[in-house]
Order: sequence, then structure tokens, then C-alpha cells
Amino acid sequence: MTATRPAALPATLLEPLREKARLLRIHSMRMTTAAGSGHPTSCLSAAELMAATFFHAMKFDVADPNSLASDRFVLSKGHAAPILYAALAEAGVFPVSRLMTLRQFSSELEGHPTPWIPGVDAATGSLGQGLSVGAGLAIGARRQKSDARVYVLMGDGEMAEGSVWEAAEFAGFYKIDNLVALADVNALGQSDRTMYRHDTDVYRRKFESQGWATEVVDGHDMAAVVAALDHARSTPGQPYAIIARTEKGHGISFLADKDGWHGKALSPEQLEKALAEIGPAPPVQKDDGRSYARKSLPVPPDFPAPPAPEYKLGQEVASREAYGTGLRNLASVNPKVYALTGDVKNSTFSDILQKAQPDKLIQGYIAEQNLVSTAVGMAAQGLVPFVDTFACFLSRATDQVRMAGISRSNINLCGSHCGVSIGEDGPSQMALEDLAIFRAIPGAAVFYPSDGVCAERLTEEAARRPGICYLRTSRPKTAVLYGPDEKFPVPGLKVLRQSANDAVTVIGAGITLYEALKAYDELKSRGTAIRVIDLYCVKPLDTAALAENVRATGGRVVTVEDHYAQGGIGEAVITALAESGVALAAVRRLAVDRVPHSGKPAELIETFGISAKHVVQAVDQILQKK
Amino acid sequence: MTATRPAALPATLLEPLREKARLLRIHSMRMTTAAGSGHPTSCLSAAELMAATFFHAMKFDVADPNSLASDRFVLSKGHAAPILYAALAEAGVFPVSRLMTLRQFSSELEGHPTPWIPGVDAATGSLGQGLSVGAGLAIGARRQKSDARVYVLMGDGEMAEGSVWEAAEFAGFYKIDNLVALADVNALGQSDRTMYRHDTDVYRRKFESQGWATEVVDGHDMAAVVAALDHARSTPGQPYAIIARTEKGHGISFLADKDGWHGKALSPEQLEKALAEIGPAPPVQKDDGRSYARKSLPVPPDFPAPPAPEYKLGQEVASREAYGTGLRNLASVNPKVYALTGDVKNSTFSDILQKAQPDKLIQGYIAEQNLVSTAVGMAAQGLVPFVDTFACFLSRATDQVRMAGISRSNINLCGSHCGVSIGEDGPSQMALEDLAIFRAIPGAAVFYPSDGVCAERLTEEAARRPGICYLRTSRPKTAVLYGPDEKFPVPGLKVLRQSANDAVTVIGAGITLYEALKAYDELKSRGTAIRVIDLYCVKPLDTAALAENVRATGGRVVTVEDHYAQGGIGEAVITALAESGVALAAVRRLAVDRVPHSGKPAELIETFGISAKHVVQAVDQILQKK
Repeated sequence: MTATRPAALPATLLEPLREKARLLRIHSMRMTTAAGSGHPTSCLSAAELMAATFFHAMKFDVADPNSLASDRFVLSKGHAAPILYAALAEAGVFPVSRLMTLRQFSSELEGHPTPWIPGVDAATGSLGQGLSVGAGLAIGARRQKSDARVYVLMGDGEMAEGSVWEAAEFAGFYKIDNLVALADVNALGQSDRTMYRHDTDVYRRKFESQGWATEVVDGHDMAAVVAALDHARSTPGQPYAIIARTEKGHGISFLADKDGWHGKALSPEQLEKALAEIGPAPPVQKDDGRSYARKSLPVPPDFPAPPAPEYKLGQEVASREAYGTGLRNLASVNPKVYALTGDVKNSTFSDILQKAQPDKLIQGYIAEQNLVSTAVGMAAQGLVPFVDTFACFLSRATDQVRMAGISRSNINLCGSHCGVSIGEDGPSQMALEDLAIFRAIPGAAVFYPSDGVCAERLTEEAARRPGICYLRTSRPKTAVLYGPDEKFPVPGLKVLRQSANDAVTVIGAGITLYEALKAYDELKSRGTAIRVIDLYCVKPLDTAALAENVRATGGRVVTVEDHYAQGGIGEAVITALAESGVALAAVRRLAVDRVPHSGKPAELIETFGISAKHVVQAVDQILQKK
Repeated sequence: MTATRPAALPATLLEPLREKARLLRIHSMRMTTAAGSGHPTSCLSAAELMAATFFHAMKFDVADPNSLASDRFVLSKGHAAPILYAALAEAGVFPVSRLMTLRQFSSELEGHPTPWIPGVDAATGSLGQGLSVGAGLAIGARRQKSDARVYVLMGDGEMAEGSVWEAAEFAGFYKIDNLVALADVNALGQSDRTMYRHDTDVYRRKFESQGWATEVVDGHDMAAVVAALDHARSTPGQPYAIIARTEKGHGISFLADKDGWHGKALSPEQLEKALAEIGPAPPVQKDDGRSYARKSLPVPPDFPAPPAPEYKLGQEVASREAYGTGLRNLASVNPKVYALTGDVKNSTFSDILQKAQPDKLIQGYIAEQNLVSTAVGMAAQGLVPFVDTFACFLSRATDQVRMAGISRSNINLCGSHCGVSIGEDGPSQMALEDLAIFRAIPGAAVFYPSDGVCAERLTEEAARRPGICYLRTSRPKTAVLYGPDEKFPVPGLKVLRQSANDAVTVIGAGITLYEALKAYDELKSRGTAIRVIDLYCVKPLDTAALAENVRATGGRVVTVEDHYAQGGIGEAVITALAESGVALAAVRRLAVDRVPHSGKPAELIETFGISAKHVVQAVDQILQKK
């Protein structure tokens, strides 16, 4: 807490804020009743917090509320969307008349916020993610010389999520003092009283234990809320948490602190009763039918070509290390690039970037959820974040990546140590489901470089490409296959071995591509030609090229991947081929089919059925069958 | 902290414990040097904690250390596996000679612990999950009248994970006082000093803010560690956290508190130097080649048939509600059944169980990671946990489910509100990637009931089936299709419409099955017969039955699912058909292909391409193409 405190706001300035809070309550109830669903009582508890934040604390450009200069607001308790929309409308970002379209298919005002709404930077609605997004926005402002501040409104129910405390420790550790958390402690969850009910001191101690300045206030006392926001502004060196004791449904007698009202809109009759209690309501304004959605979402900034990869053909380099080199080269020409690492920078090799430009790597410690959502916030400020950890540990942030997908966020993620080829560390360290997870994120690109050149080039591509890009890198060193000028279009694939007489197309990536190449040599020595494809881009899939090649080998195809059989390369390729009408004469999918084990990489590739031997066997089986 | 404290252990009893710590250090270094990899320094910091816990505090049956009566130990910092194995060996669970097989393919002593090792209940190695597992083991003991206590060893690095604090708040809230957390604060992460270095007070305040009794000790002072463990035992009403200041690499001059040693085995020369420092080492014992893996892992207990579903054909009931009814019926005949809910029991309908048997529902609040790992602990005690939340929020616990898969844990998960058919709440609340995630968990069964009868029967099946079972339930009410005695074998499917002249097989589940049935009616009125399949069991897939039906319709197939196109029903079915050699004449996959939007369920089903109209169009296209 700070020692010097600004003078309290005079009562004459509080009254307009109280009126704003009253209007926000009216809008929130009307909107949800019109929609027939929504969470009015979760809005009512936050009305003073919202009014004070939007109409006293925040300074932002109503014509461009997502600009770098603008203070930002993140509604972490996304189900209170109506009151956010009401605040944006009252601020003049869009007309109040638009509010009555809430939750309609034709409206940008969805049930939970998305960045299509001006003033929103990230989709919320999966609880507990907003504070990390706010931390990322705050970092994005500071690193780009903006004095903008970031406000995050959280519910007490969502503060049970561990991700909130990852964000809190991160912001406390890095003393992110342009970040303010507002905790709306209304003591009512969806189905029960919250864990700590109105014991605001628990939250205070939790925040303080992680380096935050805190203040506990009556969340319906406008003077107290305004004063707390002022204190936050005048407390340097620490993020600030305003812990507000509130009532769910506050302001309406039959809703206030009542069970059973979560996520329920008022009936028209109930609304009338509520409005009668709350005083004169402005007339309902008719929507003009115009959309106020943002015209476009942020796109990654353009940048000049980075230095070309410097490998010799056949040189042994791990794709994970090439990623680090590529990141360093990229950052040398793109000042917006940042790495966020989960305490594994010496395994994922983002430390190569750090050695060149120490301030471009943010150590995020072992807190993957926070890494991803912080990156979403940074991307919303126009930065180009790369999150790195072992690929299996990115699964810790699956829900955050899902939400980033809904946000159409320009984040990049590098997952190293994929598959059984990591060896002795065993299954807990092996990503064997990451392709399934990332392929199922709409709009996400999934890259799987096999050699160093491809890894560097796809790192560059990730920085250029809008939306989520996932890079899957491998632990073992592998031979460089491509010259420094090779291009890797997206979608795309490389045909590494081909002839007019190819009997089967074999598709691999990463470590299995090299197994396929070994199988090629063995089969060739026996007089069988196979076509070998490097599927460096797993999504989007170059279906036309796949179809052309598999048709050329008579509809005979083998896929081989260091991944479980479900949701990976095999399913992607085979389904795409079948859908495009390729007559599939014989299909074999080689993949890991059970929980693996510790052992030497070669032992595991062999035991779990994805070695050159298995490729040869699959080809032999197919051809005998012919 | 407790007021009355037991007397300190006499020095004569401390010396043998110190000798055990010394032996554990020797074993840990030798094992990792023999393996050529591993994390010896992460073991060395924990030697006194491990020795005191295993040889002073814990009481367990060395012949059956996973028994209900046995105290349990969870190594949350799984990379310190060598010292756990060393402690188990020194305790007599398996011979010390076995230790030298660490990380070999033929050995059960994998790089990170798995439950195949006697004395281990859950796989660890993805950090921050052990405290939740421990909470589940502790609950499992208490609910089954065991006085057993549970000890969880955590690293300070992993305490950056939010999941740790979900577990801490859960255990504090429920006053799980047979649970002891040991925090090994060695201040060194993998790639940097940890966030709070040796500031043990931060951890103390974090635990205390959540209701734990705490004690800070010098983790290399055996008397202090032993005393703390005694204090923990004599502190009722609260879980107990022993926060130990330690040194990574402690005991060896060139390792202690040194950077750059994470995850590195000593060379044979370095080992010799280390052993010279640490005093006389016992001779290395030669492995006898015998496996000491557990013969089997826990299987769910058998139970009599629950009451049959009570629906009339055509009655409208949501599968999510039938799940709740089924869970209640199941629990009426199986006392091991428990529900853990993420504050959504009134949406997922586990509150139906709670109304019948209030003590069988555990409110886990909004902390999905903790729900899943707690369930893993409960299952390891022979309970039958069902975790429920919105399906999209289960994605928050993807890494925990992944680790549960490696553990072969008997947990069941019900995800409600799948797909766009939830309507107005919008994309953040829609699970459209859950099939991809759960299908990629090895050994997991994926059930997708369409009607109430099937939902109840598959809930029963989940309780009988070993391994992870995932139930995907829907928000809208749907017509009951099956009589109360219908059986739903696994794998299996139901052919709901068929004739000798079926032109196309249409495969759906959940809401899309009803769209397929509508399409059937429309096409029939136009003289086209289609075969309609209810794919209630998405994994394992009944490939033989699928192939038979699709062959019967000339290799023409349409899949339709309320899920993204990747990793769902379409890819599973089409790939399986192609692999089994079904000549696919025409394939259409109807699925959600982009981020959806708020709107009415019918609007969304229509807009996102999975309605009866789209099924009819797909069939028409296929048949025109013929």
C-alpha cells in the first residue's frame, strides 16, 4: 500500500459516476431480458467497479479503444459481458441502441466478449484467463513506450482457477505496475456460495503474498472504489489489486445476494419490477441494424528478410536448436519479436535469442497457462510473441490456446521434445497428442519442420502469418536436407524422393521422415521405388499435392508419425485424400498406439512401430496385397 | 502452527536417518551416471526430506505399498525419480540391485515415475500435479475409513504452476489434514534461479493464505525435518506444509547450489569424485534381471445392476440430465462412486446425485486441473470418481488427463454443453475440440450418447470400465430413441435406419444424429433410402460394423458432427474405413469449420453446416456424382 494518497474525489464528481452505474445496471438487465438469457446478476455486482473504471480511471480513444495509447480493460469474468457492452456504449464506442441486439446471431455483441467488439482485446468466458491477458497488454504497452494502463475485472468464483495465480505471481514478480486487478467478490458462484464467500482478506493475503499492493473496498461505495483506483495509479513499483466486497444482483431487492439467479435473465415482468426499484430508466433505443464490429483484427507487422539459414547439407542439427537460431535471426530484423519461455530456454533453445538480445526473452517460469495468455495480450499490442516449452507441457494451456483461437490471436508456440524420440525421460515428457490438439484449433497453422533450414524458415513464416502458429520441434539431431534458399510455402510439402515407377507414397515429418528415407534406400536396393514426402506443414494441408502424389502411386499410401494415431498426420492425410476422391487402394498408418516407455530413442522408434523397418514392412504388405 | 509439539527425536534415532539420506544420495548419483541421464542434483536437495519421510514418518506395507492402509507418497517433482526409487528400494519394496536399471527400456524404473512401480499411485513428471493427486489419495483414505496419511514432495520451480495453488486451496478449504506437502526449495530451476529463490516466506504466506498450517525448516537439518513431520501429524484440522530451504546438489561441493547442473548425470569420473566426498559407499549390487513392476493396476470394483432408465420412447430429455440421473442410479448400487464438480452441478446435473446422497458430491469449484488430478488420487484408492464440467472447460485439464492416461487411471469425465448446439452463450462455452483431445489419450474410451437411455447406460459402463472414460453430453433436449433394456456394448454402434437399398451411410451422434434422422425422413419422401448410424461409442471404434454398413451402401458415407473437422468423428471413421480396405466411393465430412458465434441453436446448426439440410445436400451430391 502506498503512503501518499491523492485527495478523495469531490461528491459532485461522484454523483455522475453513480448515475453511470445505475444506467449500466438498467442496460444489463434490459439486454439480457431482451435476449432471453445471460447473466444480469453477475453484472449488477460490478456496476460501481465498471462505472468508476470506465468513467473515472480509464483514458482511451473511443474511436480506437484498442490503440497502443489507450488504457485497456479486460473482462476476465466474461459472462458479465452485458455490462462491458453497456460501458462501451455509454462511453461512446458504439451506440446504446446496439445493446438490445445482445446474443443475436446477427450481432457482434455475443454472449461472451470477443475481440470483434471494439475495446475488447481477447475473448473471455473461460474463466481465470483475463489477468494474464492483462499482464501481456501491460507488458506490450511498456515495451512500446506507452503509458497506458490495464484494468482487469475478475469474479471471485474464477479466482479458484490456478491460472489467476500464475498471472498474479508473474505480474508481482515483474512489478508490472501499469496493471490493476479488480476483484468483484460477490460471494456467489454458479451452483454454490464461493469458497471464501465474503472473506476478502483471503484474496488480499493471496495477492500480497505474491508482491501486489492491495486494497479492500466496499464495491458499491463509489467514493471508495474511485479512491482505490486513484491509489492504484499513485502506487508505483507494484501491480495493484482492488478487492471489492460486492453483492451479486446488487441494487434489486429480489436479486441481491439471492441463490438461484446465476445465468438467468429476468422475465419482462421481473424486469419491470426491477426497473421500478432502480429509478427512472431512459427510453429503449431501437437498434439501427448496423454492425459496430471491428473492421479487422491486428495483423503481424511486416519485416525485412532475416539472415538465411547457415547449414551445410547433411549437417546434423536438431530442429529445436534451429528454432532458437531462427528466432534470433528473426528478432534481428523484427523488433516486435519476443520469446516467452517456461523455464526451458536451454532445451527449446530460445536462449540463443536471449544471448543476442537479453531483453527479448521473458522468463515465464513453469506456468504455461500464463505464458500463453500473456502472449495473447502482447499480440493484441502488436508484438509478435513466441511461447516455448516442451510440446507436452503446452497441453497445460490447451484451454488458453482454445481461447486464443477464438480471439484470432497472432501468437506463435514452439513445442519441443515431441514424440517417443526423446528417449529416456519417458512418456510424461513426450508430446504425442499435440498435433491433435493444435489441428483442432480453428485457424491455427501446424508446422513440423524436419531439418534446420525448414525450422528457421517456418519460424520466420510464423512471425508473418496471422493467427496461431504452432511449431513442433524434435530433440534429436537430424541431417540438413535443404539448401539455405529453399522456400517452404504454406500450405505445402516437399517430395524428397520420386520416380516414374513409385509404388507407394510414404508421408512423414520430423524424425519419421528420416525413417522413411532409410526405408527408401532399403526398398530401392530391393528394386522397389517409393515416393517420400516431407509434410512440413500439417495444417493447412496441401491436399491437391497430396492427392496428386498418392494418385501417382496408385492410391497406395503409408503415413508414419511420432504421435498417437488419433488426430495426427495419418488421420489428416487419409481423410483429406478420401474426401478429395482419391481412390485409396491401400492405406497404412504408422503411429504410436499405446503409452510408451523410457528407453533409447532408437529402441522406442522401433518398439512403437514407426521405424524404417515398419515403413518397409508396410510397403511390402501393401505390394504383396496388390 | 500447532501449540503442543511432540518432543524432538533423540539423536540416536536421527543418525540412522542421516545415514539413509547419505545412501539415497549415493544411489541417486550412481543410478543416473549408469543411465547416462537424469536429474541427480534435484535428488540431492531432497535427501533429508525423503529419508525422514520414508524412514521416520511413513507407515506402509512394503509388500503392498499402494494398499488403503498404507501411507502414500507422491513425488510431484517427478524428475527426482531416482531418489524415490532409492527410497523404495531401501525400504524393501524391491531390491537395491534393481536401481541400476534406471531408464533402461527393460526396466520398470522409468525416467519419471509411473504407477507400474510399487508405491507409486500416479505418473508424475509434468510438474505441479502431485498435490492434487495427494489430496485425492487423502480423501480416498478418509472416505474409506483409513487413517493413512499422504506425503507430497514438490519442487519450488513447480510451485509456479497454478495447479499447485488449486490443490492448496482445495485441501485448505476442505481441511484435508491427513495431507502433508513437503516443499523442496532449492532455489534453482532448469534454466534460471527460481522466482522466489530462497525466500521461503513467500511460500509460507501462500500456503497460510489458503488455510494451511506451515513450518519453514532447513531441509538439510534432519532433526528439524523430523520434528516438522511430527508436528504435521499432531496438527489436526489443517493440511500441513513443510517448507524446506535446501540446496540443489547438496552434499557434493562441485554440485551444491551450482548453475548448469539441472538434468545432467555425472560422468564416471565426476561420480567417483562425488562419492569420495560423501563417505563410504556400499558395493554396487548387480541387477537380477527380474522385473518388480506391479502385476496389475487397480480395476474398478464390480457392482450390481443399477435401476434401469425410466423414459418413454420419444420423451424429450437432455443427455446431460440423463447423465445426472444415471449417476444417481449408479451410486445407489455402487458406494464407491463420487462426483467432483467444477461449480456447474446444476448444468451438468450431478446435483441429481447430490440430492439423493449429499456426501457423494464434492464441490471442486472452478479449478478443473485440480478436479482431474484429485480424481486420479481417489481412483488410486479404489473409488470411482466422475468429474463434471462443461466439456470445453475440461480442456483446461488436458495435461492432467494426459498424465492420467499415462497412469492408466480409472477416472471418468463428463463434459456437457458440447458443440454449437448450446446456442447463445457463444464459442467460449462450446466444446468443439474435445473429441480430438480425448481420442488422443491412449486407452481412453470416448462415449457420445444421443438419448437419455444411452446416457444412463454409458454412465454405468464408465464405472465398470478400466481406464479413462469420457462422456460427451449435450445441452438441448432430445427424443428418447431406445427402450430401457437396450444394451450399448463397447465398441459398438446402433443402426437406426436401414433397408436393402440404402444408398449412403450417414453417421452422427448427439444432436447431429437427430439431424440425420430428419434427413432420412426427407430423403425417404423423395425415394432415397439412407442408412443412419448412432455412433455412441467414438472410441474404441467398432470398425468391423462400420465397414460392413458402409460396404452395404457402396462405400458412400457421410459423417456429421457438432465438433471441429479435426480429430473428431469424421476423421476417426473415414481413416478406419480406409485402413480396413473399404473401397470408399464417396466421402463427405460435415463438421464445424470455423469459430462459431452466439445465436439460436437451430441457427448455428444450420449456419455451421451440420443440419439435416446439409446431410440431405451431401447425400444428393454423392448420388448425383454416382
